[in-house]
Amino acid sequence: MTEFFNGIAPIAYEGPDSPNPLAFRHYNPDEIVMGKRMEDHLRFAIAYWHSFAWEGNDPFGGQTFVRPWHPQDRMATARTKADAAFEMFDILGQPYFCWHDADIRPEGDSFAESLKNFEEIIAYFEEKMSIRKVKLLWGTANMFSHRRWMSGASTNPDPDVFAYSAATVKTCMDATMKLGGENYVLWGGREGYETLLNTDMGRELDHMGRFLNMVVDYKHKIGFKGTILVEPKPQEPSKHQYDHDAATCYGFLQKYGLESEVKLNLEQGHAILAGHSFEHEIATAAALGVLGSIDMNRNDYQSGWDTDQFPNNVPEVALAYYHILKDGGFTTGGTNFDAKLRRQSLDAEDLIAAHVGGMDICARGLKAAAAMIEDGGLEDALKERYAGWDSPEAQAMLNSDFDTIFEKVNSGAINPAPKSGRQEMLENYVNRFV
Amino acid sequence: MTEFFNGIAPIAYEGPDSPNPLAFRHYNPDEIVMGKRMEDHLRFAIAYWHSFAWEGNDPFGGQTFVRPWHPQDRMATARTKADAAFEMFDILGQPYFCWHDADIRPEGDSFAESLKNFEEIIAYFEEKMSIRKVKLLWGTANMFSHRRWMSGASTNPDPDVFAYSAATVKTCMDATMKLGGENYVLWGGREGYETLLNTDMGRELDHMGRFLNMVVDYKHKIGFKGTILVEPKPQEPSKHQYDHDAATCYGFLQKYGLESEVKLNLEQGHAILAGHSFEHEIATAAALGVLGSIDMNRNDYQSGWDTDQFPNNVPEVALAYYHILKDGGFTTGGTNFDAKLRRQSLDAEDLIAAHVGGMDICARGLKAAAAMIEDGGLEDALKERYAGWDSPEAQAMLNSDFDTIFEKVNSGAINPAPKSGRQEMLENYVNRFV
Amino acid sequence: MTEFFNGIAPIAYEGPDSPNPLAFRHYNPDEIVMGKRMEDHLRFAIAYWHSFAWEGNDPFGGQTFVRPWHPQDRMATARTKADAAFEMFDILGQPYFCWHDADIRPEGDSFAESLKNFEEIIAYFEEKMSIRKVKLLWGTANMFSHRRWMSGASTNPDPDVFAYSAATVKTCMDATMKLGGENYVLWGGREGYETLLNTDMGRELDHMGRFLNMVVDYKHKIGFKGTILVEPKPQEPSKHQYDHDAATCYGFLQKYGLESEVKLNLEQGHAILAGHSFEHEIATAAALGVLGSIDMNRNDYQSGWDTDQFPNNVPEVALAYYHILKDGGFTTGGTNFDAKLRRQSLDAEDLIAAHVGGMDICARGLKAAAAMIEDGGLEDALKERYAGWDSPEAQAMLNSDFDTIFEKVNSGAINPAPKSGRQEMLENYVNRFV
Amino acid sequence: MTEFFNGIAPIAYEGPDSPNPLAFRHYNPDEIVMGKRMEDHLRFAIAYWHSFAWEGNDPFGGQTFVRPWHPQDRMATARTKADAAFEMFDILGQPYFCWHDADIRPEGDSFAESLKNFEEIIAYFEEKMSIRKVKLLWGTANMFSHRRWMSGASTNPDPDVFAYSAATVKTCMDATMKLGGENYVLWGGREGYETLLNTDMGRELDHMGRFLNMVVDYKHKIGFKGTILVEPKPQEPSKHQYDHDAATCYGFLQKYGLESEVKLNLEQGHAILAGHSFEHEIATAAALGVLGSIDMNRNDYQSGWDTDQFPNNVPEVALAYYHILKDGGFTTGGTNFDAKLRRQSLDAEDLIAAHVGGMDICARGLKAAAAMIEDGGLEDALKERYAGWDSPEAQAMLNSDFDTIFEKVNSGAINPAPKSGRQEMLENYVNRFV
Repeated sequence: MTEFFNGIAPIAYEGPDSPNPLAFRHYNPDEIVMGKRMEDHLRFAIAYWHSFAWEGNDPFGGQTFVRPWHPQDRMATARTKADAAFEMFDILGQPYFCWHDADIRPEGDSFAESLKNFEEIIAYFEEKMSIRKVKLLWGTANMFSHRRWMSGASTNPDPDVFAYSAATVKTCMDATMKLGGENYVLWGGREGYETLLNTDMGRELDHMGRFLNMVVDYKHKIGFKGTILVEPKPQEPSKHQYDHDAATCYGFLQKYGLESEVKLNLEQGHAILAGHSFEHEIATAAALGVLGSIDMNRNDYQSGWDTDQFPNNVPEVALAYYHILKDGGFTTGGTNFDAKLRRQSLDAEDLIAAHVGGMDICARGLKAAAAMIEDGGLEDALKERYAGWDSPEAQAMLNSDFDTIFEKVNSGAINPAPKSGRQEMLENYVNRFV
Repeated sequence: MTEFFNGIAPIAYEGPDSPNPLAFRHYNPDEIVMGKRMEDHLRFAIAYWHSFAWEGNDPFGGQTFVRPWHPQDRMATARTKADAAFEMFDILGQPYFCWHDADIRPEGDSFAESLKNFEEIIAYFEEKMSIRKVKLLWGTANMFSHRRWMSGASTNPDPDVFAYSAATVKTCMDATMKLGGENYVLWGGREGYETLLNTDMGRELDHMGRFLNMVVDYKHKIGFKGTILVEPKPQEPSKHQYDHDAATCYGFLQKYGLESEVKLNLEQGHAILAGHSFEHEIATAAALGVLGSIDMNRNDYQSGWDTDQFPNNVPEVALAYYHILKDGGFTTGGTNFDAKLRRQSLDAEDLIAAHVGGMDICARGLKAAAAMIEDGGLEDALKERYAGWDSPEAQAMLNSDFDTIFEKVNSGAINPAPKSGRQEMLENYVNRFV
Repeated sequence: MTEFFNGIAPIAYEGPDSPNPLAFRHYNPDEIVMGKRMEDHLRFAIAYWHSFAWEGNDPFGGQTFVRPWHPQDRMATARTKADAAFEMFDILGQPYFCWHDADIRPEGDSFAESLKNFEEIIAYFEEKMSIRKVKLLWGTANMFSHRRWMSGASTNPDPDVFAYSAATVKTCMDATMKLGGENYVLWGGREGYETLLNTDMGRELDHMGRFLNMVVDYKHKIGFKGTILVEPKPQEPSKHQYDHDAATCYGFLQKYGLESEVKLNLEQGHAILAGHSFEHEIATAAALGVLGSIDMNRNDYQSGWDTDQFPNNVPEVALAYYHILKDGGFTTGGTNFDAKLRRQSLDAEDLIAAHVGGMDICARGLKAAAAMIEDGGLEDALKERYAGWDSPEAQAMLNSDFDTIFEKVNSGAINPAPKSGRQEMLENYVNRFV
Repeated sequence: MTEFFNGIAPIAYEGPDSPNPLAFRHYNPDEIVMGKRMEDHLRFAIAYWHSFAWEGNDPFGGQTFVRPWHPQDRMATARTKADAAFEMFDILGQPYFCWHDADIRPEGDSFAESLKNFEEIIAYFEEKMSIRKVKLLWGTANMFSHRRWMSGASTNPDPDVFAYSAATVKTCMDATMKLGGENYVLWGGREGYETLLNTDMGRELDHMGRFLNMVVDYKHKIGFKGTILVEPKPQEPSKHQYDHDAATCYGFLQKYGLESEVKLNLEQGHAILAGHSFEHEIATAAALGVLGSIDMNRNDYQSGWDTDQFPNNVPEVALAYYHILKDGGFTTGGTNFDAKLRRQSLDAEDLIAAHVGGMDICARGLKAAAAMIEDGGLEDALKERYAGWDSPEAQAMLNSDFDTIFEKVNSGAINPAPKSGRQEMLENYVNRFV
């Protein structure tokens, strides 16, 4: 047992009335929802970076957390950090975790040394994972924190950075495969621009498209069976990020011939920053056939940066899972808590409680979503609203042309009468379940 | 002469030092900029709707303008309105104008009656245009104001509305062609949703894609040589509009096989509402090969609705034209003033002065953009920044694979050193010209 | 019975499991919450304007609703409208309603004629109210819709508009008193500016301060016992509105000596537009001693205009009532539904269901808030967090000076150690109740 | 000469046509504008923190800058940093600079040690200032970066932090006075809250009011003749900051009896984040009598965090100086560049060029503002617009009461006719000067 979580027992399900802040009130992994265990629906993952690598800094202040694995620039503390992480996985019992290379190993003085450090930690993870049920949801490369990536990774004006990025992603894909990861994620935090004045957007997009094709080629070469995911975000740290939102990513994937090879990892906070609701991004990806996985968190709607808070609003979370369930639920994807403590939440207990609360919110959301699907009220309303389109006449019209349609309309045969959209009644309906 | 503009003489160019509020200080149509007349670069158009159809209403208040063509629900005043409009075109001397069907004709009791009204006004326009130099930049159908379109046009749950929309667009395309219009525009203000709860997004997108294919088919059928343009906007009046921004539209066009048939009409205010700079939208469309035309106006960056103000910030306008000129300048497109008076600006003089000011701002922006292109400072900086990619080694690397690149990086042969992005120096450079 | 609500029976409480869309599932007027009837806590009011005067227009479209009381510019339909309104009050059973003068009477050709119309309707209301339990929560004057107010009411550059406004408010205060209204509200939708270029802000603020002093003087003169309320909003329709938010209003009230005479009517949507949470505005007003009443609705966090939707998020509403209950609950204030149907919600049933849903959301929020207060967890956490300040030493320090404190700190006697802010644990706590 | 700026000569004025990126094109210190030297109008200051203490970190990436004074945690490099700073002051020739204590001295292991470090550097500054013309515009205490301040300074739940803050401000005021500083500034970056759930807002405001009274008392005790300034910002790093904007600060100052003792230091970026234009904040402070000084920079209107870019938009800057000049110009205040390089701008030349560009933009803005004042067009328009209020009748009406006014209006003697607000004509007017 590490000194950090000393004394916190594995979290148990105690039911909705428990006042215990370290118990699940709603998340009951074995409970069956729509014919499947709750754990298998939600597929929770813990994000290594926020919980173990971030030290509490913000743009106006330094480290607030004091952890046994600080400072993080040496191998010994990297192992202590891994010990604490896996201890937390035991406490929370969630089935998955996720990492960036830079979260888990100290940066070396050279690429080769960084890789050596990385491989040692991957081996250390492998050993730990062999005696536990925790699995890897996805791995990814941090290509935005070190100064070499200040002007982008695959979109960098310097081809050497493209090369360094390619080599980095190769090692991270290798490690992901070694650990049995179910997806590989790319978030292009600096694939974008600070100012158009110094940016050749067309050239950069072509480089990014080429890079992603290399990722897909490498996946097939090594026989990685997981899903390649890109993660939309509109801006921050960049002024503009090319993977702006789900619809933009879909256009990009089409342009570079990747729409059947790559799916999306959608984050609540990134959706909000792009001016969308989370369910919008999920429904868009589903409609376009590219829904992969989610980063669950919550952005303050009124703070214009990525706040990465733990989710705490059941009505919103329920609508997110409603669209995921409508799309058939997760296959390789899952619910990764890309959420961090507030920097004043200093204690180990805060870290556990935050995840417990988040998992409970998701469980409530999932159950509400499933109940709505089973009740069928929303789907029935949808069918009724679009029923006119199911007629042969409507389909014939849809497949005709302007002249044909014009004749009919101009003859007076068509004069549409508005029908209520019933928004408030549908909102009330949802409120019966959340 | 109408009673409305009684006494305002055609606007003349008087040079930058003129204190005359009704003179051009910068817009000099015949002045040569980069080898072309200024008028031929800018291709100004006046928007009928804001200048003649809008009565000063806002969500909290009614009509403020009192005009000789009010009320607008009869043919006689529609003709008075046209008289005033063409008189204003004479005063301003801009080469183009634009309309929605609903701006120019009263709604009839039936489709056929509306069409009859429309055709009479089109004939009236034709007559007026025959004795003037003013031309039609584009026509479009207003499929968002009447209650029949409250739930969308081509994306309406009711197929009758799709049909009504098809018939409407047909008549507007016919009229556009009859008047020699150089483009046809579709802005889908209600092609989107108010709530996902009552919306089948995939089905609606398919209908919208089908509709746009019908438009293209009809264009070819009738031999219309102009450009079909769609106009992105993220929201308002809809909660979400499918034509969100340039990148989203590009993805949509690709999905429905239209990326070589349809281009974009980009509006400053819509760019701002989507969280983008205007030059971003222009540069994006240019990079993707779909830059068509612009709606010039200005959105208050701090009001979350479409403020449609007249442009007044030369530095911003200059960057917009810089990217237009870099893309080769307008072909069928132009600069349409999709801008309206503030509702307190009651006088005929306000209407003239607002356009004079907007035209001057654009002229200053164009000249600054041309000067930057001729000086070449930005382009040189760009070439230098990406020079590394021009080497055969870089191109070979780009066309290789992860394993090849990894070997080189891991051997220590590549260790990129950051170089300054020089943003402030480039911003200072721009400020030499604006 | 009017033809409009024909057939909708008074709404009954049926308990949380009722699937009936026209039943209360949570609002049970006689249920006792913290020792008081739920109805007496919530003090619901219906807003005449949104439910009866608004016709479904938005900035891009006209009327969508078709009502028996259209067109609204004549006395006969004003009476029909009143009949329908009171019929809805019977159906919903809420204890209060609210109006602007312009909602209830047609505008006349002169001030005197408008007043005559107004007084006739007030008499009609009086008669109806005499045989029902419904009361007037507040009256107010619409001084933003008619073009005479396009440049403001009390802040208008034209003193005649100030005068017209003063006369108007006098008549509305008279009518409010006559109907036994419990408050009088002023919302200054055009008390602000469109552009600073044409605005003398200091002068306008002085005029607004003088006007509000006249309101208070008149209240005392006529013996009106209700509360004078101003309603903050940051912008829209104005570019900037002087009553920006609660803190700004408090500064204004102090400057003009009104902080003990005037309180605030806080609206959720206006809070959001000002960049605040609703509970922030309520807690701020409570801390400053000026919390009066609330306009309950919901703004889309991602639409930058006033969406005035019905509330539907229990967690948010619960926090609002938590701060209201902490402040002692409403005295003359109440919960006014300043909420409107989406413009596609055409049916009478939509209007009823929307209010039923909103009342249920508020009831759930109130009960959750009361449960949190009775449990005491949040208050205990607060007391513990600030406990250090309760010591005599801390109070002595607070009343000392820099030199005294410096000596102690510099001697090393004070070296503060951060303690966890426990935000996530408190958020989880709230989620036990909502 | 330090190794850092090696070779960059003092910046000279070369006139508008100079292509030299390291020359002033508009800022000419001795040029007379409205009877005063340009330098004496603008009173430029360099901010130590952004230019010398910040290392290029952002929330997603670490240090990008490599400077001779890194690492900054020792006294020797603090002196090197000071050497470089004063060398830059020589190169730019601006009359002032500003600092936080934490910018200039390493944190010690105790308060006393930090103070010792601070006093040594202050002495080092004193020596340097004695042989140069550069002066101190203001000093301030950084009470937001170190973890002890994570929950606020004067508003901290822990009274020990209040004490530590008091002692800190005392030492910073002492140092400011010693160096002849002309103002003392307080920016309360963490005086606010992360969540209302753990916050007693009323108590915190009282503590903040008490603290500011202590500041004022201490100022008088030591005979500091400068101005005490507070700096509004709405949020970031806090979720809500009590000094939200100018109007909120004014309310706070009134509540704690400080409105005649304390003025405001207004920042462009903070204005934007609060949803205001910069000129709005300046005009508001001027109207309320509390305009003190400005932090000149520029926030990206579309990035929701504090971007602190160098100003580059003349039209906006001109309106800011227009309101400053209308208020009589700066007394103890000045134009502090609270602006930082983009983190990719690595070179010493970038740091110089950014300031040169910013100073030129301000000079252009000042000259345009002065020209507008001398021309008088805006002021004349304002006088004309409000002329009605200058009549004895209007003043009598303003000082009468509702009954008196009502009689006149109801008799039909008053029926206001709207007059154009002329916004576009005034905007065009401004564009003649910028």
